[in-house]
Amino acid sequence: MSRFRAIYRLTCPARDVDARARAIAVEQSVEMPLEAIRHAHVLDEVVAQVEDIRPLPGGGHAVTLLLATATTGHEAGQLLNMLFGNTSLQPDVELLDVELPDDLAGALPGPRFGIAGIRAATGARERALTATALKPQGLAAEELARLARTFAVAGIDVIKDDHGLADQRAAPFAARVEACQRAVDEANRATGGHTVYAPSLTGGPRRLLEQARIAREAGCRMVMLAPMIAGLPLLAELAADPDALGLPVLAHPALGGAARIAPPLLLGKLFRWCGADAVIFPNHGGRFTYSPETCRSIAESARGMRDGGARGRADGTDAGGGVEGLAPAGKPFRHRPALPVPAGGMSLERVPEMLEFYGADTMLLIGGGLLAAGEAMLERGRELAAAVRRGA
Amino acid sequence: MSRFRAIYRLTCPARDVDARARAIAVEQSVEMPLEAIRHAHVLDEVVAQVEDIRPLPGGGHAVTLLLATATTGHEAGQLLNMLFGNTSLQPDVELLDVELPDDLAGALPGPRFGIAGIRAATGARERALTATALKPQGLAAEELARLARTFAVAGIDVIKDDHGLADQRAAPFAARVEACQRAVDEANRATGGHTVYAPSLTGGPRRLLEQARIAREAGCRMVMLAPMIAGLPLLAELAADPDALGLPVLAHPALGGAARIAPPLLLGKLFRWCGADAVIFPNHGGRFTYSPETCRSIAESARGMRDGGARGRADGTDAGGGVEGLAPAGKPFRHRPALPVPAGGMSLERVPEMLEFYGADTMLLIGGGLLAAGEAMLERGRELAAAVRRGA
Repeated sequence: MSRFRAIYRLTCPARDVDARARAIAVEQSVEMPLEAIRHAHVLDEVVAQVEDIRPLPGGGHAVTLLLATATTGHEAGQLLNMLFGNTSLQPDVELLDVELPDDLAGALPGPRFGIAGIRAATGARERALTATALKPQGLAAEELARLARTFAVAGIDVIKDDHGLADQRAAPFAARVEACQRAVDEANRATGGHTVYAPSLTGGPRRLLEQARIAREAGCRMVMLAPMIAGLPLLAELAADPDALGLPVLAHPALGGAARIAPPLLLGKLFRWCGADAVIFPNHGGRFTYSPETCRSIAESARGMRDGGARGRADGTDAGGGVEGLAPAGKPFRHRPALPVPAGGMSLERVPEMLEFYGADTMLLIGGGLLAAGEAMLERGRELAAAVRRGA
Repeated sequence: MSRFRAIYRLTCPARDVDARARAIAVEQSVEMPLEAIRHAHVLDEVVAQVEDIRPLPGGGHAVTLLLATATTGHEAGQLLNMLFGNTSLQPDVELLDVELPDDLAGALPGPRFGIAGIRAATGARERALTATALKPQGLAAEELARLARTFAVAGIDVIKDDHGLADQRAAPFAARVEACQRAVDEANRATGGHTVYAPSLTGGPRRLLEQARIAREAGCRMVMLAPMIAGLPLLAELAADPDALGLPVLAHPALGGAARIAPPLLLGKLFRWCGADAVIFPNHGGRFTYSPETCRSIAESARGMRDGGARGRADGTDAGGGVEGLAPAGKPFRHRPALPVPAGGMSLERVPEMLEFYGADTMLLIGGGLLAAGEAMLERGRELAAAVRRGA
């Protein structure tokens, strides 16, 4: 019977840890008193087991549970439910890491395109990639398209919608996507470049699928969506079905930071396992508070370098990167690597440092920092594209 | 131009509060440096404004922002994005409360059935209702159906799937739903009762809609889903379209506790605004740590008693119930009231206290507490049904 490891950080008093660990094992499997279970096979094969408890140097205890794979139904949403559904309602628990067994991993789509697919689409073969965002919302479709044209002429690899752009009156989805894609196409023809435009898909599944159709028909070669708003199960279904989308997905972390799930696990692993081809996350030193180590761990998780779960730091400070000794190194995963996309208050001046930190399998996203250049936007965009090309 | 209030708790140092409040207003609207915005109408009509900042007795500051309604595109997912998308990634912020303007409220479906619809379906006209859960997962469909029959004979109003039941091999969705609904139908015919069975819908939207179809065809008169896993936009689309579902929705809080969104806002308001007819939440004194005041606030929010935002407690301890003086009492909302469903480690012994605390517009959910009765389950179920009927 297949089981898999889920690792939690428990911050209750030390004397309660054993009991709380057992309680979480029950909560995340049968959710009822064990003495009320009459079926031996349920006790043996369904109830989660506490495999290991050890103090974390960073505070609290790491509790490793063995969850029964069958309880996930081999589906993304139910996986999330079994990992953290009810326990998310208890404030002393954080979900640190997960190791998927092969049968469960194989049931999740993973990236359909991944780093290689995004390199093929943009023609950026070995170097790091560049990205920027169309904003602010409130501009008309044609004004956003003018920005898109400028960035494409500058040679930015990926131009995405601001995640605040949805289907608002100022620039309705269909009009915006057609105008922006046309502008990027024209710029590509003029420069011989391969800039990709990624519109943001929003709304309930019916509306979102309709937007995907519009994007495909407009010639878009990538889309963006926010899995924690749209639902990870939707991402998984979309990624699994080429007829529904068939384009690389850039995952936006909106609403994902509040989740008491370690960022490397949520953004780096779960997003990728569910089909994200590229993953945006807040870089250190910007408007957000992630540490360099968390950022490195997100990037490595997105690239599939931490699926085994045992390659992380032993001091527990790097939540989500794996806790050494809790689990044997797993064999490499079958899912393709996804492209890490650090973002959030970045500037042109930080490009060398970011390239040094993240290496070539990375896309640097600079939005406001380019838009702030005003009349010099084209020039600054060219500098960004050139700096990243040089840096590779 | 329509704006609406969103209220956050900021826990940064007091000297930084003004700057952080302005930064959040930018983050949750245009997400770029204001000096880079050339269009006056964007600065005037799109950028969020800081309306009020005041210290909270419970610690931190309450920051009231005026968000531009147009930025939400009048859609559930984009509303969530504009309320807390990027700011969720910053650890010093909690989303406390929201006041919807009528035009935005009217664009969200709200409960299609609500308390009155659930009373009509169950025949429970004026009293509190009872509910229980089928578990543990790992049982076969016929074993779960046997439990359903017992609870229906006992006169429980609503029998729901355990939220751990999805589409697993032990009891595949279609087989389980048909067996359980048949068992409940037979029991209803025998007793003249009106027990409702609510299966749990899971998976990506395509799979979930297919499950909805199976449930309808099996004769189910209610369903359950977890909006924070399936996606609030999916709930909103489902509730808005009677052809897709057309049944009352019982919302489960799974994954919702981790969200740094005040529980009364998330579970009581947002779930209802997006179409939940009944809302399960962790009762105080059980396995979860919500306070009585939080539970009362969730219940009142679900019933639509706090939509105005100004009826909450002034001491700030009751996150999500509204902060007195920050906003004028809004006019009553058009959405129907949803049924609050306290749950989580409840027992028969607590029924009088819970009835006293929550009143008649409530459904008491006791799962494990009944299942633990073993051979006496029918008797205990009857006692629960009778106690609640007496209490009304």
